[in-house]
Amino acid sequence: MEPLAESEPFLITARWVLPVTGPPIEDGAVLVRGDRIAAVGRGRDIGGRPEEGRGPRSLSRLDLGDAALLPGLVNAHTHLELTILRGRCEEVEFFPWIRRVTEARFRKLEAADLVSSARWGALEAVRGGVTTVADTGDAHVVLQALADSGLRGIAYQEVFGPDERECHERLKALETALDAARGLATPRARVGISPHAPYTVSAALFREAARLALERRLPMAIHAAESRAERDLLREGAGPFAAFLAGRGISVQARGVSTLRHLADNGVLEARPLLIHAVHTGVEDWDLIRDSGCSVAHCPKSNAKLCHGIAPVLEWLARGLKVGLGTDGPAGNNGCDLLEEARFGALLQRARPGASVEDIRRLDARAVVRLLTLGGAEALGLDAEVGSLEPGKLADLTAVRLAGPQLEPGGDPETTIVFAASARDVVLTVVGGRVLFHDGRVATIDEDAARAALQRAAVKLGR
Amino acid sequence: MEPLAESEPFLITARWVLPVTGPPIEDGAVLVRGDRIAAVGRGRDIGGRPEEGRGPRSLSRLDLGDAALLPGLVNAHTHLELTILRGRCEEVEFFPWIRRVTEARFRKLEAADLVSSARWGALEAVRGGVTTVADTGDAHVVLQALADSGLRGIAYQEVFGPDERECHERLKALETALDAARGLATPRARVGISPHAPYTVSAALFREAARLALERRLPMAIHAAESRAERDLLREGAGPFAAFLAGRGISVQARGVSTLRHLADNGVLEARPLLIHAVHTGVEDWDLIRDSGCSVAHCPKSNAKLCHGIAPVLEWLARGLKVGLGTDGPAGNNGCDLLEEARFGALLQRARPGASVEDIRRLDARAVVRLLTLGGAEALGLDAEVGSLEPGKLADLTAVRLAGPQLEPGGDPETTIVFAASARDVVLTVVGGRVLFHDGRVATIDEDAARAALQRAAVKLGR
Repeated sequence: MEPLAESEPFLITARWVLPVTGPPIEDGAVLVRGDRIAAVGRGRDIGGRPEEGRGPRSLSRLDLGDAALLPGLVNAHTHLELTILRGRCEEVEFFPWIRRVTEARFRKLEAADLVSSARWGALEAVRGGVTTVADTGDAHVVLQALADSGLRGIAYQEVFGPDERECHERLKALETALDAARGLATPRARVGISPHAPYTVSAALFREAARLALERRLPMAIHAAESRAERDLLREGAGPFAAFLAGRGISVQARGVSTLRHLADNGVLEARPLLIHAVHTGVEDWDLIRDSGCSVAHCPKSNAKLCHGIAPVLEWLARGLKVGLGTDGPAGNNGCDLLEEARFGALLQRARPGASVEDIRRLDARAVVRLLTLGGAEALGLDAEVGSLEPGKLADLTAVRLAGPQLEPGGDPETTIVFAASARDVVLTVVGGRVLFHDGRVATIDEDAARAALQRAAVKLGR
Repeated sequence: MEPLAESEPFLITARWVLPVTGPPIEDGAVLVRGDRIAAVGRGRDIGGRPEEGRGPRSLSRLDLGDAALLPGLVNAHTHLELTILRGRCEEVEFFPWIRRVTEARFRKLEAADLVSSARWGALEAVRGGVTTVADTGDAHVVLQALADSGLRGIAYQEVFGPDERECHERLKALETALDAARGLATPRARVGISPHAPYTVSAALFREAARLALERRLPMAIHAAESRAERDLLREGAGPFAAFLAGRGISVQARGVSTLRHLADNGVLEARPLLIHAVHTGVEDWDLIRDSGCSVAHCPKSNAKLCHGIAPVLEWLARGLKVGLGTDGPAGNNGCDLLEEARFGALLQRARPGASVEDIRRLDARAVVRLLTLGGAEALGLDAEVGSLEPGKLADLTAVRLAGPQLEPGGDPETTIVFAASARDVVLTVVGGRVLFHDGRVATIDEDAARAALQRAAVKLGR
């Protein structure tokens, strides 16, 4: 199920085209040839008008009318395979929450169930204008969903192992999982490695995973500095994670350092991981992130839902860190609407005590559209290929309608997209020149069949 | 244009019915007779099955399938007439923002433009499942939009007047506006008074407005304790509002008190106003609010957008204050999606430093659904008539679909509504037994005509 690029070049026109690397273009157009963008500009300059005999006669055209066409949205962190847990892990603290999630995933569901779950999550992404997902989970499962849906992405194979004594065994399991995933990997859907988090991965396993990532040139992602519980474990060897590990006979030590320092001390930052969350970070951590060439996946709604606090996004941006936006998985966030995620993230920064207008201008609607697209691509190291509308880049496109009682009048298109639009207002999703979603219909996945498979799997979770 | 209650009783069935005053009912039904709810319960108990010969044969039926039927949403604070300013007042601080809004409203737009604007805002409300709006603005304008749309509401006539010397004149203008509005008022669309805010209303005018409200038994609403600028004006006689007033020759004094104390000292709390925002309030203020029988309209997204901070909602609820949720106007909030507003408000409380799971359980999905409905009705003093599904109450109903890639699987219906659904997922809006919205179509307003009128008015604002 490789992407079927349209055989003929086609032209998409819209009231606004947002290249992101340049100013918005009114009455704009994007010419797609194969899986690439061939041209971006004013509609009359690129496509001509067929009735005037200008422009190629054979050109297929799609006029989106009162909509904004922009680079496809990049979801810098999600867990597609856990879509089935949406709404099932509510109102609990982080520690029992993650226990509940892992128990459902590893004890109740089989690989086929996880594939159904991931496919349903991919459907939500495609409908919501997401073109690239960075997913941590079981790579073999996630790659199937990426193949089925046509999405671009990185499937970071997760590895767990808090017990140093099991390091070798866990590393072998990781290599086996990577071998199993290899057959499904393509240039569009790549494999990576994700040593899960400092409270589930020993220092030794972190070192080995980083070595493997560097050796095989695989991208890496880590849940890092997410919770107070993680901070308490690393700094003081205390808190619920410490108690849990000690209860399983695993040695726990007070390291007296931040998560970032811990990762740096173990050589992990050399693999330039994507750091997921990074809420509990300070000036020294930000310098480490930037100077080591790492990046951040910012998940504001998940951070809020699980009481982790407000991440220092304004500080990151002021220091030039690479930042993308992520919905995190539906087990925590529930709705994976990346436009709402961006709006929530921007408003949350404004709600911080002492937020000034100078601060928030650094996170205005245009800056947020950049985070949603090019920012995410930079965070994933994919910005040479996607994240902006430029000739030669891959044709990953999203369109958001600007008309309707919830959107009009809307000021400039970026303001409407960031402060008023919803995933429900997405009207087009294109990945590598292939139309995945248009006119309310997903082209790649049969929704009824996908729902039926999801519901069959959900039965195993009980009520 | 009074509500045309259906002439025959009709039965609405849905997978879930949420009475709010009782537990969710699976496969539930609501029987509507005239403008009232006649029965609420299991579908098989109320409606019978026509094919079995049970239940009234003549009963019209509407089966919503996989959806939740709940009391109509109550938007406890908005400015319908400012819908036209959506997206036009971005990235500025509160003081220049409010100057920009008032300039557009009073200098550039005429009454007919404001009616077009308010009608368009009413359309958004109806589509988003709102059945009652509490609006502050020009009551005559807002009542027209309520009449056209079929919405229930209170149109609080705003009065401004920071200069004590103009108190008499401003009061006369208020009375004239109330007289003009009287002809449009109905039991469904009532008139109230809103002395705008402590920085635009003198103490004398506050006293007179409260007297008038008590004398005429009119509900009252005040923007109170919204911003740091307001706090600085009242406590210290300083800040941008003080400078502005002094520049117009209006005497400014450091009162050294909170907004709530200022209102109490001037007898305003005796009129039991709805206090809009109340962000900058402390323990003494909360006691004043509760003990005087006032209520709060909580507008979390607007508070965040304009950098006002995070309101102490958990503290309000712990003390038993009456709280409703408001979107505020589209000039600040942009999208007036009350479901998203509720989600944002709940997540914001969890993002507060030190938020614990005990705290957030007080604001779980069920509690948030209550705020959206009965909480809002209580805040507006309308809870004897609306806000829950109970026989004898007015038939104000909203239904939200529970099916689809953005919602499934969703756990319990309240969790789906609060943490995943959008205004775009509303499938039915009924006010007083009259169907205002169903199947994607608004029954009361011609959308194309409303859009054309809005666009004509918007031309006056320039680009």
